[in-house]
Amino acid sequence: MQNNPYKVSKNVESLSAYTPGEQPQGGGWVKLNTNEFPYPPTPKIKTAVIDAMGSDCAPLRLYPDPLSGKVREAVAKHYGVEGKNVIVGNGSDDILNLIMRAFGDDKLKVAAMNPSYSLYPVLSKMQGAELLEFDFENETKLPFEKIFNSGANVFILTSPNAPLGISFSLGDLQCLADNFKGLLVIDEAYAPFSGFSAAKFAAGRKNVLTVCTSSKGWGLAGMRVGWAVSDEGVICILDKIRDSYNVDRLAQAASIAALQDEEYYAEKIGKVVKTREETEAFFASIGWKFYKSASNFIFVMPSKNGVCGRDVASGLFDFLKSEKILVRYWKNDMKICSGLRITVGTDAEMQKLRESILKWIKE
Amino acid sequence: MQNNPYKVSKNVESLSAYTPGEQPQGGGWVKLNTNEFPYPPTPKIKTAVIDAMGSDCAPLRLYPDPLSGKVREAVAKHYGVEGKNVIVGNGSDDILNLIMRAFGDDKLKVAAMNPSYSLYPVLSKMQGAELLEFDFENETKLPFEKIFNSGANVFILTSPNAPLGISFSLGDLQCLADNFKGLLVIDEAYAPFSGFSAAKFAAGRKNVLTVCTSSKGWGLAGMRVGWAVSDEGVICILDKIRDSYNVDRLAQAASIAALQDEEYYAEKIGKVVKTREETEAFFASIGWKFYKSASNFIFVMPSKNGVCGRDVASGLFDFLKSEKILVRYWKNDMKICSGLRITVGTDAEMQKLRESILKWIKE
Repeated sequence: MQNNPYKVSKNVESLSAYTPGEQPQGGGWVKLNTNEFPYPPTPKIKTAVIDAMGSDCAPLRLYPDPLSGKVREAVAKHYGVEGKNVIVGNGSDDILNLIMRAFGDDKLKVAAMNPSYSLYPVLSKMQGAELLEFDFENETKLPFEKIFNSGANVFILTSPNAPLGISFSLGDLQCLADNFKGLLVIDEAYAPFSGFSAAKFAAGRKNVLTVCTSSKGWGLAGMRVGWAVSDEGVICILDKIRDSYNVDRLAQAASIAALQDEEYYAEKIGKVVKTREETEAFFASIGWKFYKSASNFIFVMPSKNGVCGRDVASGLFDFLKSEKILVRYWKNDMKICSGLRITVGTDAEMQKLRESILKWIKE
Repeated sequence: MQNNPYKVSKNVESLSAYTPGEQPQGGGWVKLNTNEFPYPPTPKIKTAVIDAMGSDCAPLRLYPDPLSGKVREAVAKHYGVEGKNVIVGNGSDDILNLIMRAFGDDKLKVAAMNPSYSLYPVLSKMQGAELLEFDFENETKLPFEKIFNSGANVFILTSPNAPLGISFSLGDLQCLADNFKGLLVIDEAYAPFSGFSAAKFAAGRKNVLTVCTSSKGWGLAGMRVGWAVSDEGVICILDKIRDSYNVDRLAQAASIAALQDEEYYAEKIGKVVKTREETEAFFASIGWKFYKSASNFIFVMPSKNGVCGRDVASGLFDFLKSEKILVRYWKNDMKICSGLRITVGTDAEMQKLRESILKWIKE
């Protein structure tokens, strides 16, 4: 009961907060639970950040460029689109929040796949927008007709999907863009690991927007820089409601340096993909089912003595934690409680994971 | 007319964006328009930021502490309150946005003084909350009865007021807290220049919250770190709806270093106050009306040949701009269009301002 002199708004009163993956503050963990990049970001960031501070930090007393104009230009160059097609946010969560506020309300429904990013239900509820959630057909196929007939104003597709890691073809995206009567939002947080981005496609359509983040593919989760690419009309609507100074000076400097060092990331992403394939081969070798990943994580259904399911997955999660290996597990989500989402780490980290798994199997 | 396949939410469709003060990207300007600190922030920030990057930027690949726990502790220590009474945001604009979402909606009204921070109407409209605006009585007094009888769920008091710079007594704040039937939000962005903060008072009441920012009193406008202090119950509600990772690693490091260097800021704020008093004395000497400021800016009503008003203020604004001096002017707001809001800069900057004003008077 509310005994306070103030009231809480109807959309917030009953809201349950989004639960981010655990961020242990102590050391010694093999952290495979929040899909961070396993390698440091480009060392060029250090110089860029130090330069942005000046000799005496004096530049920090001034507000940053409210438009993050040079970040927009760097994003545009990366995708081969124009600066007017880009908006930059305080992480892609900031952008997703803006999308929900701009295009969802108590009359404007939002739709998404289930499973997908568990932040969407929180953001839609906060905005009072009904969220329609669709199951995959045959585990990995999009239910096109249901999406087209949903009456939703926004359909958010996580592509590659999280937590499953599966990807969708450009043909699928074109089909959605052509037939969905609303704004198609493609959340591409993990696209850098799939070898394909729909950003250029989005810039050329009136009703398609891609969202991406520097957290995953650029190793900058600590710096909170995300962006969206779309038609200029959509970008203008989002610009109207974002915080004026939403990205600080050092975050702007760091993300520009990262976006410009294509060579560094091409090599490191190649390593992540190779490690992912080796890890998938390991899971195959011990007979575990997994979704073929186009991302930097693998969703795997562990089995022990021929048995799969919630108790088995939960048991492995606890065992790994006791070995100081953190993975992501949604114990109370009946759709995905038989599997674990495991970030692709360094080769040494995956070696430790494999050893722990083999130990657990033999226990 | 909307020709797009998507609709825009009802609260955003007709919204006019907040207009921040001009941020000229070229050099050579005397920038007295956005109330930035005239001195660099503490040099200790540089070491703190470089340390937070590590030798190879590797820490940046990991998400920041979602709670900004060490920033909360530093804020708490600064005010003599507890960490549980503090929330940290991506600038105080982020916090103000959270307040509006948590405590305003189409049934829950918000109230504020007019003039005050022109972001409030934008945030309330975005949330579909009616904003009641009150005039000052006798130019600077709060209309207590109107506030108590407003039926608003939130009353936001900018204290010291912007753009006028005037302050309110602790007695006034206590009277508001005791009699206003809702959440009293005290926006203290400029409190560091007034010698008084209500944060400790807020931490001890169920229905009072103070908001502050490192942008003004700590010279960190470029880093986007703000905070609020309140009862734990209010803080928990705001925590539920903020972005999980709303403050990046370097912004956390920079703001902690700033908050801990009390000595540095005491000396620099003393200089700002001295320069403010000298500038006020100058305005008095040329017979211009101004509001006695408790802030780092002065709201002044210029006159020329005995005439005040919109044309005079507008003329001075344009003249100063031609001299490469930027001040803040709201030409289309009939309540304040006879005055200019001038940030207190360095002594050299104020010397240039005075010379330009004298030149304009003699023109």
